[in-house]
Amino acid sequence: MNAQPSHRIEHDLLGDREIPAAAYYGVHTLRALENFDITGISIAVYPDLIRALAQIKKAAAQANQQLGLLDAVRADAIVAACNEVIDNRLHQEFVVDVIQGGAGTSTNMNANEVIANRALEILGHAKGDFKHLHPNEHVNMSQSTNDVYPTALKLATYVGIFRLVDAMAYLRRAFERKAEEFADVLKMGRTQLQDAVPMTLGQEFSTYAVMLGEDEERLKEAALLIREMNLGATAIGTGINAHPDYAPLVCRRLAEISGVPVVTAPNLIEATQDCGSFVQLSGVLKRVAVKLSKVCNDLRLLSSGPRAGFGEINLPPRQAGSSIMPGKVNPVIPEVVNQIAFEVIGNDTTVTFAAEAGQLQLNAFEPIIAHSLFKSVLHLGKGCKTLADYCVDGITANRETLRASVERSIGIVTALNPYIGYANATEIAAEAHLSGRGVAEIVLERKLMSPEQLADVLRPEVLTRPQMIPTQAA
Amino acid sequence: MNAQPSHRIEHDLLGDREIPAAAYYGVHTLRALENFDITGISIAVYPDLIRALAQIKKAAAQANQQLGLLDAVRADAIVAACNEVIDNRLHQEFVVDVIQGGAGTSTNMNANEVIANRALEILGHAKGDFKHLHPNEHVNMSQSTNDVYPTALKLATYVGIFRLVDAMAYLRRAFERKAEEFADVLKMGRTQLQDAVPMTLGQEFSTYAVMLGEDEERLKEAALLIREMNLGATAIGTGINAHPDYAPLVCRRLAEISGVPVVTAPNLIEATQDCGSFVQLSGVLKRVAVKLSKVCNDLRLLSSGPRAGFGEINLPPRQAGSSIMPGKVNPVIPEVVNQIAFEVIGNDTTVTFAAEAGQLQLNAFEPIIAHSLFKSVLHLGKGCKTLADYCVDGITANRETLRASVERSIGIVTALNPYIGYANATEIAAEAHLSGRGVAEIVLERKLMSPEQLADVLRPEVLTRPQMIPTQAA
Amino acid sequence: MNAQPSHRIEHDLLGDREIPAAAYYGVHTLRALENFDITGISIAVYPDLIRALAQIKKAAAQANQQLGLLDAVRADAIVAACNEVIDNRLHQEFVVDVIQGGAGTSTNMNANEVIANRALEILGHAKGDFKHLHPNEHVNMSQSTNDVYPTALKLATYVGIFRLVDAMAYLRRAFERKAEEFADVLKMGRTQLQDAVPMTLGQEFSTYAVMLGEDEERLKEAALLIREMNLGATAIGTGINAHPDYAPLVCRRLAEISGVPVVTAPNLIEATQDCGSFVQLSGVLKRVAVKLSKVCNDLRLLSSGPRAGFGEINLPPRQAGSSIMPGKVNPVIPEVVNQIAFEVIGNDTTVTFAAEAGQLQLNAFEPIIAHSLFKSVLHLGKGCKTLADYCVDGITANRETLRASVERSIGIVTALNPYIGYANATEIAAEAHLSGRGVAEIVLERKLMSPEQLADVLRPEVLTRPQMIPTQAA
Amino acid sequence: MNAQPSHRIEHDLLGDREIPAAAYYGVHTLRALENFDITGISIAVYPDLIRALAQIKKAAAQANQQLGLLDAVRADAIVAACNEVIDNRLHQEFVVDVIQGGAGTSTNMNANEVIANRALEILGHAKGDFKHLHPNEHVNMSQSTNDVYPTALKLATYVGIFRLVDAMAYLRRAFERKAEEFADVLKMGRTQLQDAVPMTLGQEFSTYAVMLGEDEERLKEAALLIREMNLGATAIGTGINAHPDYAPLVCRRLAEISGVPVVTAPNLIEATQDCGSFVQLSGVLKRVAVKLSKVCNDLRLLSSGPRAGFGEINLPPRQAGSSIMPGKVNPVIPEVVNQIAFEVIGNDTTVTFAAEAGQLQLNAFEPIIAHSLFKSVLHLGKGCKTLADYCVDGITANRETLRASVERSIGIVTALNPYIGYANATEIAAEAHLSGRGVAEIVLERKLMSPEQLADVLRPEVLTRPQMIPTQAA
Repeated sequence: MNAQPSHRIEHDLLGDREIPAAAYYGVHTLRALENFDITGISIAVYPDLIRALAQIKKAAAQANQQLGLLDAVRADAIVAACNEVIDNRLHQEFVVDVIQGGAGTSTNMNANEVIANRALEILGHAKGDFKHLHPNEHVNMSQSTNDVYPTALKLATYVGIFRLVDAMAYLRRAFERKAEEFADVLKMGRTQLQDAVPMTLGQEFSTYAVMLGEDEERLKEAALLIREMNLGATAIGTGINAHPDYAPLVCRRLAEISGVPVVTAPNLIEATQDCGSFVQLSGVLKRVAVKLSKVCNDLRLLSSGPRAGFGEINLPPRQAGSSIMPGKVNPVIPEVVNQIAFEVIGNDTTVTFAAEAGQLQLNAFEPIIAHSLFKSVLHLGKGCKTLADYCVDGITANRETLRASVERSIGIVTALNPYIGYANATEIAAEAHLSGRGVAEIVLERKLMSPEQLADVLRPEVLTRPQMIPTQAA
Repeated sequence: MNAQPSHRIEHDLLGDREIPAAAYYGVHTLRALENFDITGISIAVYPDLIRALAQIKKAAAQANQQLGLLDAVRADAIVAACNEVIDNRLHQEFVVDVIQGGAGTSTNMNANEVIANRALEILGHAKGDFKHLHPNEHVNMSQSTNDVYPTALKLATYVGIFRLVDAMAYLRRAFERKAEEFADVLKMGRTQLQDAVPMTLGQEFSTYAVMLGEDEERLKEAALLIREMNLGATAIGTGINAHPDYAPLVCRRLAEISGVPVVTAPNLIEATQDCGSFVQLSGVLKRVAVKLSKVCNDLRLLSSGPRAGFGEINLPPRQAGSSIMPGKVNPVIPEVVNQIAFEVIGNDTTVTFAAEAGQLQLNAFEPIIAHSLFKSVLHLGKGCKTLADYCVDGITANRETLRASVERSIGIVTALNPYIGYANATEIAAEAHLSGRGVAEIVLERKLMSPEQLADVLRPEVLTRPQMIPTQAA
Repeated sequence: MNAQPSHRIEHDLLGDREIPAAAYYGVHTLRALENFDITGISIAVYPDLIRALAQIKKAAAQANQQLGLLDAVRADAIVAACNEVIDNRLHQEFVVDVIQGGAGTSTNMNANEVIANRALEILGHAKGDFKHLHPNEHVNMSQSTNDVYPTALKLATYVGIFRLVDAMAYLRRAFERKAEEFADVLKMGRTQLQDAVPMTLGQEFSTYAVMLGEDEERLKEAALLIREMNLGATAIGTGINAHPDYAPLVCRRLAEISGVPVVTAPNLIEATQDCGSFVQLSGVLKRVAVKLSKVCNDLRLLSSGPRAGFGEINLPPRQAGSSIMPGKVNPVIPEVVNQIAFEVIGNDTTVTFAAEAGQLQLNAFEPIIAHSLFKSVLHLGKGCKTLADYCVDGITANRETLRASVERSIGIVTALNPYIGYANATEIAAEAHLSGRGVAEIVLERKLMSPEQLADVLRPEVLTRPQMIPTQAA
Repeated sequence: MNAQPSHRIEHDLLGDREIPAAAYYGVHTLRALENFDITGISIAVYPDLIRALAQIKKAAAQANQQLGLLDAVRADAIVAACNEVIDNRLHQEFVVDVIQGGAGTSTNMNANEVIANRALEILGHAKGDFKHLHPNEHVNMSQSTNDVYPTALKLATYVGIFRLVDAMAYLRRAFERKAEEFADVLKMGRTQLQDAVPMTLGQEFSTYAVMLGEDEERLKEAALLIREMNLGATAIGTGINAHPDYAPLVCRRLAEISGVPVVTAPNLIEATQDCGSFVQLSGVLKRVAVKLSKVCNDLRLLSSGPRAGFGEINLPPRQAGSSIMPGKVNPVIPEVVNQIAFEVIGNDTTVTFAAEAGQLQLNAFEPIIAHSLFKSVLHLGKGCKTLADYCVDGITANRETLRASVERSIGIVTALNPYIGYANATEIAAEAHLSGRGVAEIVLERKLMSPEQLADVLRPEVLTRPQMIPTQAA
């Protein structure tokens, strides 16, 4: 009798196809599903991207309506459907693979179809009844994949960058707290893994905080470059089929809707084919990865031991370290962050290849650029939070070990250079090394300095910062 | 009131934790779940890896029993539980993140716990009642993460390689069919994108088949290197806690169970810390990616147009190409394969970084190596099948265009070199270029060759292969 | 018999060694020469680096004198020797290999020794008579390799960046001239190598100019990051052995001497170990390389042919293209720039690895970072000049071919979308494709538009920019 | 009068040019010199390449003569000129830049011109008098740059690989000697930088030798792939203008002349465009680099200190380590090898990019592939020799430190697992860690093992290899 049909028929240039009746996506999406069975991961894993697509479609509908190109009824329905997508209510309909051919057309058409079908429902029509409201002619009006897709990528990336910046700031503050906690813990600094001169453990941790703070600034600068939008460019940047007032108007709308201070790229033909801002952003993400990895290398090294290593700090135990070695605790949190860094560095290679492969008026390989950047941004953020919560916050210092290492060090002889000269200092270092004796002991024995003078020079607050050297010393 | 408890309590060196009653994994897995919330993707997405782990645990149980280290009751239960995992019946219990710290310990413990709990059930005990059968003492007996995990990676990779080789052979045969179909289609060959000398389209497609065939061989060679197993190495390769006969015995069992001709690495200490075979395999996968990408670049170039491009071949349309340009059909299948290639090349960078970061007796970064290699192997295989089915099979040639391009080409002058000399040939080429006239016409006008001689030299079968040059010509 | 001795004896912690009498370098340099026989290329190939070292030593001598740490006689002699180095008069004495261990110590000691020995001569002493003026105690006073070397790298890089920016601007202007020359040449734009919609060749060349202009800005921004100097940090950034007023003073002096607006890094411990600014700069250089490579790919594609290719533009012939194919002219200039780009991208990988490998208070691998960056900056600059002079300036357009390609294109149907609808347009495109007929012809035949309306829409100035679409059309 | 003219005139398709009278190179080389002013480094820095070119030209002349295509007089003169090049007597005439456009044409023409002009002299003619013997028609007979150049690269690379294998064997033997010397030195093995279980220092050094030995085998396998030659392919692999018997004949000759067991590639069209063997070789070189870098990382770590580090081994001092820190000795030799490794890894990225960029029948970017591979092979070889001579040979062990680290370790508890169970062992490890006490002490106190049994289990020869575990223990 009146059973619900299990599917509807949709048509494209290749012919007719059955679409599941419940699906909001349409025939173009179905083709993409069949063509791109690569990773098994759909674009829905990047909610920022889905939201950005809907924000763009909403802005375009509003701009088109304002320009008299789209009637109020359709515009309102499109806006309503977009709002549902923005509210994450239709994300499961975004089903195309994260790695896809076609320069993002499948992603854009997926959005056009979902929004059109939902808008049709809102207007009381059946899904697929495109004569009332068409994915291409109305939802995609004044647009092309070639301006919508890169704009969506940039918008989503922008949002992701600031989420990452927050995670980095969170980690930075964890390091700052440790820097304060360890401000008075004297230790040997090392260059080339060899004992160098003293510093405080607080200074060491402070550098990690400073490093992160710098990278936060670099990311914010990269975000400024990524907020240049392509809307109005249409197919190749010449703006074919777009109203002259559309570009500024849709940009303004998009800024309002997204809260992101988007601007229109100064040259839309260049912007359509250019992936420079993605390459540069990937380079900055690589910078972050390289430095996070270096910090994790340091943490693993400083906590090496417990008995046959540096043993300067203790990382909080997070899990049993070994299936065979009882009681072993491993630096698993820095290790996972190292691996995220390696992934990000590899992603940068992928982005570079994809960007270089762009030809003439378009780069057809933006989907893999997007997938790579999204992963990098997301995983770095997870890594920062994980490192802060599960490692840095719980670090403790082996203060006795650290102080002893300074006291028995040869490196403090550097501080005596201005008083006894480089040649004398070299001799004393050599004797200390051979005999195993202390530097101070030998200096006093040779009467090169008085005990008072020596004690004065070796005070921690003197050793760990620039100092006024008595002129007679020099 | 006999409601099922919702959880059980398990204990590790950090204390007690509640485990969901239904879960087969245990407290070590739970710790890992909490510690490594990075990608949202669990190791269950790599069924080859899960099966490999179970095959190893089964082989170890059998070897341990044979050595008198494990009683038959427990051994049988472990083997039965392993068989269920091998049959894909417990994969959803493998929940740790693909990117994890700890050198694979969490993956190994996930396997130990799932197998132990399932074995306990088989023996009629409750999950978690480890006094009867213990994840570490029985399931992991004679093992360490440091030998189990790399062995599992290699075993899973070995299986994946041969699946990829099959996909490449499938694509190769598609190219071979086209090579035969196009065997008589004459066209201009090009070097540096400039018209060079004639060849057949069949020759062109044949090279793609040959190229794939070579890469299949290279992958099989790489597989030979990857079948060296670490079992018996235990913690660092010295074999501590392993019976002297265990290594050869478990290797034999594993070969039987897996059907893979595994061998024991000649030096287990070296094998424990070495990632050379992964780096090399990744390099070979990169070789495959580079060449697939080159082929796809060619296909896109040869099919460029339809009117303002090379227009030599037509790729089968797979979906509407544009949301704004009606009737546009794009080379979406080669494009997706290009992007897979870029991903694989990036994965190689990741593998390189992770391999270089190994320190002393172990490489702690094998999880990201595994994740990268598994993705590369899987996606390349998908790409080959997709390219064969959705693109190569449907390619057609624009025979008229191709023949015309030879007839009006300047490049055929090269074939006249031996008859008229390089200097004359250069002059004729220049005149043809300036005047737009044909080479043959000018040669005849200048009476440099007779019409018969010229016709003879310009026959397709002469132009496209080595030829006997009359001595007077030279 | 007062023959000149052929050598002098110098001493270091390993013992005595003979130094050629004429050499200004000393025993530390000699050790480095022996230890690092790697590339056969000495640091003298980077004159910017040598000059930067001398500028730093001069600034340090002046600052030390002003602080009362160095007497006027020695300071004047050091300054005079530095001036000679700055004037390129002693570059052949900088002999250590570009790839060297020791975090740059050998480079710094090479500078200390050359300057000390030349200063000794100026003071009337023999080379090697270090009791009067010592390489370490006087030339290197208040310094460490660990602050001098990175400062020299940054200074040299800064100078190199602006030289590169000049070369890029030179190339940009060449593209701008062509953009103007080709402003009225209509052609088909392409996306995914498929005919898309019309544009002008001037627009196409203009994008290359815009792209370069953007990259110039990015490089200038990167230069701002690279002008943060480490002087005053000494061994690990704590400023040990440096006077509290030394850092600001030497920075001011260095700015005066070099003309570079250097500033002191905010945190010198962080600055000593950090290579973030090098990674980021390398990322920006990679961005430049990727885009230059894309431009060269385009130029090679657009000039493909002459008869079996795109044939849209002609690159000026620069050399015979083939040893076997007479008259063949190849795009050798874009090809060499492509290869420079590939080198730069590889250098970025090297920089990334070296930066990540830094440990604790120092990155010991700065020499390979420097070598990589210097090559990238230098070769990119050469590439830009070469591309401008030997290729872009001489490019001509095949205007007839280009116009014809628009007239016979199917892609112009896109412009009719707003008038006839996407569905009609798709049908017309399909018919044009199958029949080989023109789009306009079919539109008129079907009476979808009037001849006047059609002619109006297909005017070049309408096709290549945004347009007001009559509301009835939409 | 009769002064020697300073130049001669040569002609090419671009017109006449003056060539210095003394130069053996000609107008094509001159054009290349002007076009490619990039690195300032000429191909003469790769003598293997120059020799390979001459060997090929010699083989071709002999084959052409045998086929009746080239008369004996010219053939003999060409062979004589080639012999001079093979003997390194004309290398300074090979002046084109290592980075050049044109797919190697300039290199091939440089060779053709030098050999032709020298042959002309041998025949009593003036340089440039090409009517007697022509660079293209006679020296390049039956050849094309597109078969000569890749063949020369492969031949040169083959020779380089075996030189590298020798250097690796040299380094391997140095490690083997140390492995023997340290065979009885017990130490703690480490995983994830945490104390694991005991091993000997000899075992540790032995792994480095084994690792190198494996890589030697991998390189030899890669060499087998690189010995496939292209000769006979001519322009695009179809063999146009080559006699059917030429390919096998020239291959045989080349094998005789070079001593390399060259074979002809099975499909010459594929071989002409394929860079797979270069990519794979680069991947194997990267494998070598990754592992050498790992070894150097280990050496630097094990020798860290002298007092605040691992302090397990001492590297021989090679130079004063610091300009500010007296007596500091740094691991400069491993550091330089690390940097070579980073360069090689970057070169691999360059090779990958260049290989992927090949289009249709040729890869135009082989010059940068060659430059990258040659550098990698050369520098790795230098690095191995340097590491052997200046570092490994002089390494000494701090035997007391090493033994003490085992005695006070917690990790030895692993060896007790089979006797006391994983749970007991975990508790003991925890108590040892907290209290600072020794494992053995606690075991005895808790009466878990008898002193005799414990002593037996803790013997070095038991700890460092697989062992028979008494069944009651398990």
